[in-house]
Formats: sequence, C-alpha cells, structure tokens
Amino acid sequence: MAHIDFNSDLGESFGLYSVGSDAEILPHITSANIACGFHAGDAPTMRKTVARAKALGVEVGAHPGLPDLQGFGRREMKLSPDEAYEFVVYQIGALLGFTSAAGISLNHVKPHGALYNMAAVDATLADAICQAVKDVDASLVLFGLANSELTRAGEALGLKVAHEVFADRSYQADGTLTRRGTPGAMIDDPVIATEQILTMLSEGKVRSQRGTWVPVRPDTVCIHGDQPGAPAFAKAIRQALEKEGVTVKAPLLNHA
Amino acid sequence: MAHIDFNSDLGESFGLYSVGSDAEILPHITSANIACGFHAGDAPTMRKTVARAKALGVEVGAHPGLPDLQGFGRREMKLSPDEAYEFVVYQIGALLGFTSAAGISLNHVKPHGALYNMAAVDATLADAICQAVKDVDASLVLFGLANSELTRAGEALGLKVAHEVFADRSYQADGTLTRRGTPGAMIDDPVIATEQILTMLSEGKVRSQRGTWVPVRPDTVCIHGDQPGAPAFAKAIRQALEKEGVTVKAPLLNHA
Amino acid sequence: MAHIDFNSDLGESFGLYSVGSDAEILPHITSANIACGFHAGDAPTMRKTVARAKALGVEVGAHPGLPDLQGFGRREMKLSPDEAYEFVVYQIGALLGFTSAAGISLNHVKPHGALYNMAAVDATLADAICQAVKDVDASLVLFGLANSELTRAGEALGLKVAHEVFADRSYQADGTLTRRGTPGAMIDDPVIATEQILTMLSEGKVRSQRGTWVPVRPDTVCIHGDQPGAPAFAKAIRQALEKEGVTVKAPLLNHA
Amino acid sequence: MAHIDFNSDLGESFGLYSVGSDAEILPHITSANIACGFHAGDAPTMRKTVARAKALGVEVGAHPGLPDLQGFGRREMKLSPDEAYEFVVYQIGALLGFTSAAGISLNHVKPHGALYNMAAVDATLADAICQAVKDVDASLVLFGLANSELTRAGEALGLKVAHEVFADRSYQADGTLTRRGTPGAMIDDPVIATEQILTMLSEGKVRSQRGTWVPVRPDTVCIHGDQPGAPAFAKAIRQALEKEGVTVKAPLLNHA
Repeated sequence: MAHIDFNSDLGESFGLYSVGSDAEILPHITSANIACGFHAGDAPTMRKTVARAKALGVEVGAHPGLPDLQGFGRREMKLSPDEAYEFVVYQIGALLGFTSAAGISLNHVKPHGALYNMAAVDATLADAICQAVKDVDASLVLFGLANSELTRAGEALGLKVAHEVFADRSYQADGTLTRRGTPGAMIDDPVIATEQILTMLSEGKVRSQRGTWVPVRPDTVCIHGDQPGAPAFAKAIRQALEKEGVTVKAPLLNHA
Repeated sequence: MAHIDFNSDLGESFGLYSVGSDAEILPHITSANIACGFHAGDAPTMRKTVARAKALGVEVGAHPGLPDLQGFGRREMKLSPDEAYEFVVYQIGALLGFTSAAGISLNHVKPHGALYNMAAVDATLADAICQAVKDVDASLVLFGLANSELTRAGEALGLKVAHEVFADRSYQADGTLTRRGTPGAMIDDPVIATEQILTMLSEGKVRSQRGTWVPVRPDTVCIHGDQPGAPAFAKAIRQALEKEGVTVKAPLLNHA
Repeated sequence: MAHIDFNSDLGESFGLYSVGSDAEILPHITSANIACGFHAGDAPTMRKTVARAKALGVEVGAHPGLPDLQGFGRREMKLSPDEAYEFVVYQIGALLGFTSAAGISLNHVKPHGALYNMAAVDATLADAICQAVKDVDASLVLFGLANSELTRAGEALGLKVAHEVFADRSYQADGTLTRRGTPGAMIDDPVIATEQILTMLSEGKVRSQRGTWVPVRPDTVCIHGDQPGAPAFAKAIRQALEKEGVTVKAPLLNHA
Repeated sequence: MAHIDFNSDLGESFGLYSVGSDAEILPHITSANIACGFHAGDAPTMRKTVARAKALGVEVGAHPGLPDLQGFGRREMKLSPDEAYEFVVYQIGALLGFTSAAGISLNHVKPHGALYNMAAVDATLADAICQAVKDVDASLVLFGLANSELTRAGEALGLKVAHEVFADRSYQADGTLTRRGTPGAMIDDPVIATEQILTMLSEGKVRSQRGTWVPVRPDTVCIHGDQPGAPAFAKAIRQALEKEGVTVKAPLLNHA
C-alpha cells in the first residue's frame, strides 16, 4: 500500500571535472534530479545523464541552482523574485531540450543547494520558483523540503508537490534537520534510517532528537550520492523498505 | 505572390550591459533570433525579448552560439560534433522554457556568429547542429546561409529550411559575401538593397561584384540591428518591397 | 592647503559590451578604480584603461568585486572570509599584471558594489579584504566608506586608508548615505555638492538631511561616471573646489 | 654536472571539483606550473597550491590557458595576438598576487593545453605570449616545447627559456611528439623513460620512432600528474637520473 520515491542529485560533473557516482546510484533510485549548468553540470553531462536515467526507467527532473559554479550553488545570493523566476525557467528549459531529444518526459523540478534552502524559508522566493515551474509546464511535480515555504507555495499554485524527507539525517523538534557537524546529525546505520522512513510512512511523523514527534508527509527520500558508501546505503534501505511492503516509485506528473 | 521573411538577431544584452536597438527593430521584422546565454543574452533578457516579440506577433527563434561571452561567439573554437550537438540542444531548450512560459511556439533556429560561419563550410559540424534541431523538435525551421553546408544538412535531415540572404552586403562570384572591409562590401543605399532582394525574388539569382550571376533562394533577409540607422534602413526596404507586391512574413514551422 | 582626491570606477566594459564614459571622466579625476574581471571588466579593457590612466597621470587602483558578472557584483553573496581574501588577492594581482606591463605602480584598492557595502558593516569580511590588500602589497592605499568597518579594518592593519565621501549624495544622521529613491537622496546641483565637500574639508563634518552634523574625514570623493552629465558635473565641482584653494590630488602609496 | 628540471601542471581543481594528485606529485618535482583560473584553477586553489609548493621549496610558475573552463583549455580558439597578450598578462598577474602574498617569487611561465600547442607552431601567437611574459617581468623563465616557435620567440625577446622535453612520450623524426593513440606513443617503462632523458642530456638528441636522431636541448621534463601511477613514475625516473649523477633542479629566473 505504502509507497515512496527515492531521489538523488545527479549530473553534477562539469567539463573534465567528474563528481558523484551516478552510474552506481541510478539503479537504486526512481527520480533523478539533473543539474542544469548553473551550479554544476553542462550540456554533455546533461545529455549523458538523461540517457542513463532513460535506460533504467528512472524519472528525470530538473535541478536548478544559483548561477555560481565556483561555489557549487551553495553560497546564498540575494536574488530578486524576477531573477529567481528567470533562472529557473532557463534551467528547466535547458533540460527540456535534452529530454525532448531523448524522447522522454520531464517529470519534476527540485531546486538545488542554497536556492532550495532559501526557498524553504522565504515565501516570496518560493512563490517565484513555483510560478516558474508552473509557467513552463503546470503538470511538473515540485520537490521541496517537507513542510516548508517551498512546498506551501507549490500547493498554493496548484502544482503536484512531493514532500522531501531524509533517511540519513536526524530531525529537530521544529521539523528542521539537525545541523551537519552536530552530534547525531547523520544517520549512518541503514537499519535506523529504514525505521525512520517506515515510521514516517505508517505514522505520518518523525521522532526528533529530543524525543518529541513532528508531523511529516514522506513523498520522496533524498539519496545522497557523494559519499563513498552511498550506493550500498541506498540499496540497503530500499531492500529493507520493499521487504516491509513499501513500493518505491516516482510521483508522476499530471499527464495532460 | 512573392514573399520573404525579415529576421534579426535580438536579445544580446547581458546583465547591466545593453546592446542593440531591439525595440526599434522589432516593428520591422517578422522573425526574431534570440540569444540563448552562451555568446550573449541571459535569462532576464530572454524573457523580456520573448515578451516583446510576442506582443508584436513576431516569430521567435533560438540563436545559439559558441560558449564564449567575452568573445561574443565570434572567435572560432574547435568543437567536436558531439559538443556542437549538445550546446545547440541546451540553448534551444533554454529558450523553449521562455516560449512555453509565454504561451507561444518556438518557430526556428539560426546559429550565431562563428558557429554559423563554421557550419556554412563544415559539413560535419552542420550535420551535428541540424541533428540537434531535429531531435529537440523536428518541426522547427532551420535558418542558414543560402547554399551552404548548413542549409544542405538541414534539407538532408528533412527539416524545413530558410535560406538566408543579405540586402546590405554584396556577393562574390562563388556565392559568398564580400568580406567586410573590402570596397563595396556594404550596401548602404536602401534602393540598391531593395533591388538586390527583388532580383533574388524574381530571378532566383544575385549579381556578384564581378557582374556574374549566382543562383540563390531568398527565404529570409538578415536585418542587422547594431548600426545606428538600422531601424530606418529596415523600414525603408520593407516598405519598398511591399510596394512591389512582396509579402513580408515568417516561414512557419510544420505544426503537428 | 586643503586637498582631496577624485576617484571613479572605470574599465567596466566587457567583450563587445561597453559601459561608462571613461574617456570623458578621466581628465577630471586623480584616482581610477579599475574593474578586474569578476563583476565587470576583462583583460583587454584592463589593458586599455591602465594605458588611458597612465597617459593622463591618473593613479591606478584595483576595483575588486564579487564573482558575479551577470549581476554586476551588486547582489550580495555569502562569502567565507577565506573566499573574500582569495578573490581580492586574485583581482589585485590580475591588475598588477597590467600595471607592471605598463611600467607604472598600482596605487590603491577600492572594493566594488555589494562587496564594498557588505565590508562597510561586516567586520570579519572587512578584515579579510584588508589582509588581502596588505599581503599583496602593504604600501597600497585602501579606499573605503568613511567611518565604516572597512576603513577601521584597514587602519587596524596599518594600511594607509582613504575615507571616501560623496558630493552627489545626501547623508543621514547616522553617517550613512540616504537611500537612492528617497527624496533628497541625490544632489544634482554642483554648487550644493561643492559646498558639501568644502564643509567636510573645513569643518570635518557633514550636515545630515535632518540638520544634525556628522563627523567625517574627506580623503577622496566618489565621482560616478555612469550618468549622462557626469563628466560636466565632475569638472564643475573640481573647478569650484580649486577656486577655493583646494588641491585635487591622489593619496599616494607608501613607497618603500 | 648535468642537470634538468622536473615540472608539472598543478592547481587545476575548481570549486568543489578536484583533479590531479598535487600533494603526491609535488615532492618529486622542482617546478610547479599553477593554473590561473581560465582553463582551470580558481583563487582558493591557487592560494593552496602556492602554499604547498612554497613548503616544499618547489619553484612556482604561471600556467595560463585559454578562457574555456568547460573545455579545460584544450579546444583551439582563434585569438588575436592582442587577446593572447592580454589573457597571459592577466593570468600571470593573478598568480603574482598569490606569490606576493606568500612572500615568494614567481619563477616561470608555461602556457597550457591548446595555447601551448598553438604557440608551438604559430609564430605570431608565440611572439604575443612572450611579449606578455617579458612586459610583466623580463626576468621570468619561459617554458615551451623544445625547438618550437614558442621557445624561438622567447629567445628572440631575450627571455631565459627552458626547452621542455618528455620522458613518457616517444618522438617523431621531425621532433614532434608521437600522437597519443598511436602505437608506441606512450612510454610506460621508467627505465626506458630515464634512458631517453639521459641520452638527451649526454648527446643533445633523442632517437625518433623511426630510429633517426633529432637534436634537442633538455632543460625541463614534463611530469604528468593526472594518471594513477604518476607519482611513482616521477619518483622512479628522478631517482634513476640522480643515481647517474644528474642534478634535478629548476632553472631560476634572472634575479635583478
């Protein structure tokens, strides 16, 4: 009955530079968020990553970021809502070129890095991003941090929205993730990670570090691909979830 | 009976930097080739230029260039066919984002600067560019130098092709344009410019500087927008052509 | 006896794109702040601008900005102190290449746009920028907003510091500039502008919009070069100041 | 008596992207060619690489490339001599910022990739590059392909020139390197590689693939750092050469 999506950020290589373990992660996920050339990625990488996802039946989404390759889109930049709108339209469009050329549909959009984090708490920015998604294609699924301004904005505009949760991170009482570097921030044990997701699915809530419960709607799990053991970790969680009867599948766009 | 398209390269501003006289040229043309962020243009400029063209009923096309903003796409770069393909797909896609958001169709593709010139004589490069256009959307019209490798490649792939001719440039006996800087290269007089187009339309040929005749199929005239008198020059030629019964209109994509 | 420097931001063209009226402003100033390729400027523009300044005996300084050409360095970006240090070292160095090639000394450094504004209020950022200046060449003069964290940091590190004041902007009671767009923010009348500078020079203070007096040390006046009447405005103020016995000259670096 | 320099291209990481094995190669070389931000490298990487070289007493040189990060400076671009001059001045200057900040001298300049290869055969381009080096600092050592237009241009301008030879590549009868991909192009055996260098040092010539002898002056050996076994290969050759009495040391700039 229960189902959830596994998504991962891919296609973040650039020119001669290679990062991530895309080929190893792809078999374990159902949604690929592909970088679009602003924070990472370039045209050759986008083409190759779309082809790889298509070959494995993984849904393809755009992963737009800030125009800051040197900072990998992780440095906050003050954008006007118009600039945010325009940068997102541009990047979704660029990936649409490659999905069209490959004969597949673009399925979703998940903002990257600082753009994702800023949009989680800045309603105006979130509105601009969601309007961009809607204007390019109103059937696209928006991926955003669960219970954030970004998911709120997407729902307010009538987009199909996937709330993103984390298996490898612990939560605070206010629903935010425990800051990296804090003790207990990272969950390395796939058994505990699986339990966190199962509880989210069955109870609609997650236990915070303090022991309180936070309501959450788990539509899609973020699978990090940049650590050495990432593919094995993803595989272990997926197998454990499927053993418990959970179906791992992508949230599909609203086909016209 | 006779008809021809007026096209111009627009949307070549970037950030704070402004070039061209887009607002003044747009009322006189029927096809706008919009820069896509590689050699010039950026997301805000693309959005604004699409809106302006839409407001005037001017057809919108992508104007992909080499990834060389500092050189304005005018320096030759050795690209592999794959790179050319990927850069063109990316740029057409990026503009597709804005035409989709504006609710209009993308109509055509005209390569820019050194990419256009290299593709006019390099069959392999021309094939790669045309394959990119076809793969993104086989109904798009390809604009290329009349009688060049680029138009040949487009026709070989079954694309609708518009042969581009020039009103403000003289021709050589081999069908190429007289090099800028050479005496007689530029045609400043709108009367002579109009005559050159009329002869192309009625005779299917153009008189070279040496007096010999070169066969040419005039589908679209390039209207340069970067000189001071450009809008007045365009207006004068258009009015003179229309007075002679020529209809100025865009070649439309093959709607599915 | 009294003296003051006239500085202006120059060399902000890029590739085909041209901005500013450098040739017209240069005869009226004594310090040229030259863009270094991050927020604006490029290698050919830097070479040309250094040559122009040298020909007129105008002192040359680096004008480092944020790595954001599309935003012209005007969008705030969250930089770590290390990043700020490294970006400033890089840009001063790049200009040093051109001053060395031209056989002149680099005289000063003035941060640009959002970097200048952030450093005016962020002590950590200001310290990092000033350390970069000192490490490249401890004899360089630092230009910063009068009474800001930037000038404080420069003085704390033992740099020669030039406090920057404005002739064409009104001040608030806390010493900041009246926000652009607010009534009375801009001073268009060269007579009033001259009076503001003369009072700063003779009294060591400026009258705020509310009528209160703010202490200020006027070492260098910012001459904006991007408005149409800028050269005439600069010329008028300079002539009026010189008529009152003020010497307009650059603050020189501490020659070893 | 005999001596030779070991040089390697370093500091080619960018932002989050890491390439090369700089830390492993540095102990075995005497000259570090550091990327300057055009084809690779960025300000943080330049700072770190200068510090690493300084710590090991390795001489630091600039490694300027074409303005093409996505292509890693390996795609030919048609530059005017002025553009080449300006791009080289800019990049040497940028690195000068970091060597000044670190309190060490910049020692040499070695062009990168397509710029190096084009300058080896294009006299005009070679002249422009060497003039840039000389104008920034006439005491810098120029590194160029042995017997090329680049070394010729440097010598004609009175620069100290280091002729670069290869231990891991075979030569053709005309003195050029055997094309990569051709059988026998690469020399993997450190014994054969060492013999090639020793013969160059003792005989002033190298045996081509056909068995003919080509005159060559071996001032500096290029040590490639991007293959897995590179550090071990470099170490083996160096030890073998030193065992034969060859001193491995950098050619020093002409201190004023």
